[in-house]
Amino acid sequence: MKTKINAGIWGASGYGGAELLKILLGHPRVNVLEVTANEAAGRLVADTLPQFFGLTDLRFGAINDLDRLNKLDLVFLCMPHGKSKALVPNLPSHLKVIDLSGDYRIRDHDRYEEYYGSKHESFEFQSKFVYGLCEVYRDKIKEAGYVANPGCFATSVELGLAPLMGQNLIADDFIVCDAKTGSSGSGSKAKKATHHPERSQGFWAYKLLNHQHLPEIEQCLRDADPTWPGHLTLQVHSAPFVRGIFTSIYCRLKDGVDSGHIRKRYEAFFKSSEFVRLRYQASPNVSWVSHTNFTDIGWQVNHTDLVIFVALDNLVKGAAGQAVQNMNIMFHFAEGEGLSGLTNSV
Amino acid sequence: MKTKINAGIWGASGYGGAELLKILLGHPRVNVLEVTANEAAGRLVADTLPQFFGLTDLRFGAINDLDRLNKLDLVFLCMPHGKSKALVPNLPSHLKVIDLSGDYRIRDHDRYEEYYGSKHESFEFQSKFVYGLCEVYRDKIKEAGYVANPGCFATSVELGLAPLMGQNLIADDFIVCDAKTGSSGSGSKAKKATHHPERSQGFWAYKLLNHQHLPEIEQCLRDADPTWPGHLTLQVHSAPFVRGIFTSIYCRLKDGVDSGHIRKRYEAFFKSSEFVRLRYQASPNVSWVSHTNFTDIGWQVNHTDLVIFVALDNLVKGAAGQAVQNMNIMFHFAEGEGLSGLTNSV
Amino acid sequence: MKTKINAGIWGASGYGGAELLKILLGHPRVNVLEVTANEAAGRLVADTLPQFFGLTDLRFGAINDLDRLNKLDLVFLCMPHGKSKALVPNLPSHLKVIDLSGDYRIRDHDRYEEYYGSKHESFEFQSKFVYGLCEVYRDKIKEAGYVANPGCFATSVELGLAPLMGQNLIADDFIVCDAKTGSSGSGSKAKKATHHPERSQGFWAYKLLNHQHLPEIEQCLRDADPTWPGHLTLQVHSAPFVRGIFTSIYCRLKDGVDSGHIRKRYEAFFKSSEFVRLRYQASPNVSWVSHTNFTDIGWQVNHTDLVIFVALDNLVKGAAGQAVQNMNIMFHFAEGEGLSGLTNSV
Amino acid sequence: MKTKINAGIWGASGYGGAELLKILLGHPRVNVLEVTANEAAGRLVADTLPQFFGLTDLRFGAINDLDRLNKLDLVFLCMPHGKSKALVPNLPSHLKVIDLSGDYRIRDHDRYEEYYGSKHESFEFQSKFVYGLCEVYRDKIKEAGYVANPGCFATSVELGLAPLMGQNLIADDFIVCDAKTGSSGSGSKAKKATHHPERSQGFWAYKLLNHQHLPEIEQCLRDADPTWPGHLTLQVHSAPFVRGIFTSIYCRLKDGVDSGHIRKRYEAFFKSSEFVRLRYQASPNVSWVSHTNFTDIGWQVNHTDLVIFVALDNLVKGAAGQAVQNMNIMFHFAEGEGLSGLTNSV
Repeated sequence: MKTKINAGIWGASGYGGAELLKILLGHPRVNVLEVTANEAAGRLVADTLPQFFGLTDLRFGAINDLDRLNKLDLVFLCMPHGKSKALVPNLPSHLKVIDLSGDYRIRDHDRYEEYYGSKHESFEFQSKFVYGLCEVYRDKIKEAGYVANPGCFATSVELGLAPLMGQNLIADDFIVCDAKTGSSGSGSKAKKATHHPERSQGFWAYKLLNHQHLPEIEQCLRDADPTWPGHLTLQVHSAPFVRGIFTSIYCRLKDGVDSGHIRKRYEAFFKSSEFVRLRYQASPNVSWVSHTNFTDIGWQVNHTDLVIFVALDNLVKGAAGQAVQNMNIMFHFAEGEGLSGLTNSV
Repeated sequence: MKTKINAGIWGASGYGGAELLKILLGHPRVNVLEVTANEAAGRLVADTLPQFFGLTDLRFGAINDLDRLNKLDLVFLCMPHGKSKALVPNLPSHLKVIDLSGDYRIRDHDRYEEYYGSKHESFEFQSKFVYGLCEVYRDKIKEAGYVANPGCFATSVELGLAPLMGQNLIADDFIVCDAKTGSSGSGSKAKKATHHPERSQGFWAYKLLNHQHLPEIEQCLRDADPTWPGHLTLQVHSAPFVRGIFTSIYCRLKDGVDSGHIRKRYEAFFKSSEFVRLRYQASPNVSWVSHTNFTDIGWQVNHTDLVIFVALDNLVKGAAGQAVQNMNIMFHFAEGEGLSGLTNSV
Repeated sequence: MKTKINAGIWGASGYGGAELLKILLGHPRVNVLEVTANEAAGRLVADTLPQFFGLTDLRFGAINDLDRLNKLDLVFLCMPHGKSKALVPNLPSHLKVIDLSGDYRIRDHDRYEEYYGSKHESFEFQSKFVYGLCEVYRDKIKEAGYVANPGCFATSVELGLAPLMGQNLIADDFIVCDAKTGSSGSGSKAKKATHHPERSQGFWAYKLLNHQHLPEIEQCLRDADPTWPGHLTLQVHSAPFVRGIFTSIYCRLKDGVDSGHIRKRYEAFFKSSEFVRLRYQASPNVSWVSHTNFTDIGWQVNHTDLVIFVALDNLVKGAAGQAVQNMNIMFHFAEGEGLSGLTNSV
Repeated sequence: MKTKINAGIWGASGYGGAELLKILLGHPRVNVLEVTANEAAGRLVADTLPQFFGLTDLRFGAINDLDRLNKLDLVFLCMPHGKSKALVPNLPSHLKVIDLSGDYRIRDHDRYEEYYGSKHESFEFQSKFVYGLCEVYRDKIKEAGYVANPGCFATSVELGLAPLMGQNLIADDFIVCDAKTGSSGSGSKAKKATHHPERSQGFWAYKLLNHQHLPEIEQCLRDADPTWPGHLTLQVHSAPFVRGIFTSIYCRLKDGVDSGHIRKRYEAFFKSSEFVRLRYQASPNVSWVSHTNFTDIGWQVNHTDLVIFVALDNLVKGAAGQAVQNMNIMFHFAEGEGLSGLTNSV
């Protein structure tokens, strides 16, 4: 086994790519050999991302310069939705791939087109991808060459719900997911929705009942319970913090189920998952998980009402951290390598 | 009719009281004669509340100094929960009262004690109070001497739901309310939950499935539909903005109901309500209503899913502004007097 | 005297213009007849600025449609720097003008070009303009047809320093102004410097020792003391609040001068200025003046060190509020008409 | 040489202590054996500091339980000012000490009492302490048993100014330091100044011209230039970010000195200092250094004006990070051990 692998980040100037670069620079089993970014091609990383000043001498290459891929063992694709599906058919065959976009997450071609609103020209590659929700698909990821890293909202909903599906615990026709995201989820390009004077004291809903993470969530939950009829309500909101997702999931318990049953099920499901922390009858807080790869899950029961709270950092467990966790699994490194040190004091 | 009434604010050093003072100082039909505050008694208002420097020469009196009430036409009670119920039995009989606390909102004695966790020593006065949700109980408020001003979360849920109850529009057994509040809702005393280093980038749930506004909400919705079985799920959250409440309400539509039916009902219900603004198939934003008395209501339908979004300023429509609106109705002033000028540009 | 004047706002979709519209809609002596905005021409104001929904039926016209000016008594020019100087030569002669841009503030042509980096094609109109710092140039403004509204940073520095110049109080060769602005000062267009993920927890300096408000400040201070040699150090910073400017001004006292002398001078200078509030040996706070037309000035002395603190709302006293104050003076309305009600509780 | 040292943190429940615990848990050369906190004594760390859930099983001991010190090689004192001076005389003699409070920083007894307002009962221990500004006193720290870790504001001013003292570069009688701190600098106890509704959009000055870091700054600068007459102006401000200090330092250049001379001097002075990053003719940003041990220094010259900008994280380089850096130097570890991985992407 190689001591260190060579990795590249395609689309490294956005927030997901930069967070990935940060994590990989501190990862003992990875050399970051190549980073690319279209607008910044030719520039030093530290000129575009001043936080990296003094930390790396890397220079951005062009995304289309595929020769740079030859010496890599692994490439992370961090470009906007729609770019990976054009690139993947042209990748060298030896290369492992972790795609952080939504291009290859969905196994149903029609659902993809319905929610992403565009043709998929390389859908034949979809079946090569394993869905990279580490805590649920760990065994498949171990064998995977291509991994589709889950969406940030999807990760939060799936980690809260997948353990409970098909276990005779919750009513399967009443699931409401109310998700709130920080501003870094909108990416590094300035836009109206992240204009400080309007975001700093604002709160609103967007993509009304129609977020593109819905099909991957329903796919994951149906994997957990193939008899599930397959409908949940998801609404996403913009909140004025920078990092994090907080999702409140509302269900109805089946007769005779109480908070202890939920606890037992979560404990069993996550017993080998170091990055999930259970907070019994309590709420997590996005600030406790920010800058870390943790997902904190709390819940409360009142009669037949169950509410589940899931908090994670959208850039770490919701993107770059989970991508590294997937890499660790794919290359048979310790699952927490390079990630366990990501902690936060306040 | 008197040109101007004399009003007092009991408990004027907290955020609700201070917002009320601000509004009343600009109200053409009100003289603010007395303000009280226990800890600040004897001090100039502007020494405790520096924003008021240059705006008023009032000095805080003591809450227990009831002689100060004699020359008033109206008193606003803005003290913490539990203080009004001790004071009300001792008020002069000529005095009109608007109570901003939760002491007299709930008509069912057992529900009061269950949710407020304390005995109610003057519950016989409860029946003298009209519940002051202006848009719903306007006619009763016109005749009222005592008004119980609604809670901030309650106002948001009730304005979104009351119009739809008993109209054969929504399923009555599936109502989830996910509410988010700004930090001013926790009051003016510094505490852990509003410590800037932890609130600024935090988001969490609190009072898990057990908020004390639940009984007044259920009471209001049962007034609207006496056949309603009476259960909804309410979860409140702390968000890192200062002013505002944003509540997302999830329901299932009955067969044949669509977004247009909801619109028609809201338009009819609110047609004489200048402080409710309807935003068809769109989300409101707490920043659009902050510093104003508006409640903005938006909604979206997807198949049988209905989500309603309600945004208001917790200190204005959720407290002081609605109290002034109630005063205007009680004294037969124009309902928007002193409130219409509360606007916001960014 | 006319009961009401007819006013228009040229460039009303930015933050300065929108704040002005908000104030004028509540002003008892003004009809807002026309608002214009290039990108939004033809649209309802409330479609572009959702806060105004329900408050006005105005529709944006095009900036170039000068016919709209004929029925106006007064036009506010709120366009970006450089647009007023093209428009002013074409305005109808009956029209009074308040220009919020920097185009006509500076009497020295070379200084204008040095700091604004462009030719001034209509500099012959400059001499028609009075510099609209109300507390200093009130008598000239009363007679003015054209007023150049001061810059936001300039207002803060000038109100702190102008009273002290030429009074034998401070050393004239040691003046350092360290100014901090909120994000609304960058305007309503989204940009990197106001991207929420970067502004929310960021703080930095910009326009290093080279801000374009420097020449108008030096001009104003030399008006106050024609013997002043004319050099101060000004550095501006971006802070993560939305509204407000806080400027700390450092000087050295002359022999025998103490804090009481400073107080006496300020009190005398501002005794007829309702919008300046003096806070003796204390610091003001931008949150105390936000959403108001107040400028709060505090100061402290330690031996020969004097620090002066000036806080104001950049959109109100730093722009739209001062423009309305100028209008009130020009039209001989009460100076605080439509402005005194702008207050803030928290 | 021991592979790992045993360390304890006295006063570990505050922000400085918690940040230190976070760093030390990831430090390859340290076992954290003991943490203490008075109010939390007996409780699990993770119960008081929920971020640490899953990261440590440590339980807080009592501060007075000195037996716990016996097995340690090093203790960090992170208690409030005034507690260390009572504890230090009772420490076991084998123990190395890094004190994060202000108790032993100042060599002049009268200056200590003047600025800290209390008697110093164990001033005879002061001479055992080395002042722990790593980049300036590195050689002395190597030999030290006791280190007084610098204050956060002091670190920012001293790193900006110490290199320039006594070099014939700047006028020594005109130094103004305008410093802005985030809310975490006020500690973990909720108080008015850090109450979110007032801090979130507030900005103000405090400790007017009278901050207690002044004597340690003047002491450090006089170490650099014994001929310096010893007076600078320091004013601190509260800003609405959480982490970070940004200090703007204003000087006058001596004849013939330009920006290049400043650059050369800084480059020479900091050439072996991995945690100082120089940003030529540019401003740093507190967000670039937050969660890291970096100090970023930028500067600009305009004629004879020099402004220096210093940004650091008050909890890391301004407290816990510098303490670990001091530990690394004292124990002859690599200076960046356990600190180089503290990076930030956004």
